[in-house]
Amino acid sequence: MTYDSNNIFAKILRGEAPAHIVHEDDKCFCMMDVMPQSTGHTLIIPREPAKDIFSVSDEGLQHLILQTRRIARAVDTVFQPEGVMIMQLNRAGAGQSVFHLHFHVIPRWGGWQQRFHARDLADSEMLADHAMRLREALID
Amino acid sequence: MTYDSNNIFAKILRGEAPAHIVHEDDKCFCMMDVMPQSTGHTLIIPREPAKDIFSVSDEGLQHLILQTRRIARAVDTVFQPEGVMIMQLNRAGAGQSVFHLHFHVIPRWGGWQQRFHARDLADSEMLADHAMRLREALID
Repeated sequence: MTYDSNNIFAKILRGEAPAHIVHEDDKCFCMMDVMPQSTGHTLIIPREPAKDIFSVSDEGLQHLILQTRRIARAVDTVFQPEGVMIMQLNRAGAGQSVFHLHFHVIPRWGGWQQRFHARDLADSEMLADHAMRLREALID
Repeated sequence: MTYDSNNIFAKILRGEAPAHIVHEDDKCFCMMDVMPQSTGHTLIIPREPAKDIFSVSDEGLQHLILQTRRIARAVDTVFQPEGVMIMQLNRAGAGQSVFHLHFHVIPRWGGWQQRFHARDLADSEMLADHAMRLREALID
């Protein structure tokens, strides 16, 4: 499968769709997941048109993982979860639903199953507030 | 919580406990998970004594993610799963059970729940065979 530039993350990167931005730089873009699996669920994506981990550049991947950790630290500060899961899914068979590479930062409280299947659209004002608090908590 | 050098991965790194080795270099160590969540479940750990993603060096983390992708490619070649999940858990509240940083490469077939809770010890001969096939499939 080649990269399809009509996916929602490509539209967000082009400014054609809205997002609750947590961080952006010349290589990546970080935003709130609009269908969060838990409170504070954040996504980190490359600007490169890579459909999954197998097709991003080495440099892009190394930048993504450092930014993913940076976001995870802010998530820890703001939401104070019991734990933090980093997850990255490749192909529909693994649960990937948007075919632009993304790393998930998922705060966790009390075990696995919290909203692991529920895919409900979260309140936009709440997500805007979460994004603002995360931006304020980003360090270095 | 500080790093506890009595964890099982620290023992494996010191050669005090066995492992089905897929790859090792001066910065990281890759092996079969002995309680696989699916066939081909592989772990990538740093040699650095880091309990989770928050305490590993930038250089160590960047090396880990490149090696994680390299292992994921070999897992794809050998086991031909429908999808591949990369997962990394921080603190017990997220499901972390060994307190030495590790990335999971988990091949997936048909959805989420496959052995997501079952934690059974896999047959050692089977794991040895899987490790050998993965070593042969590693490229670059």
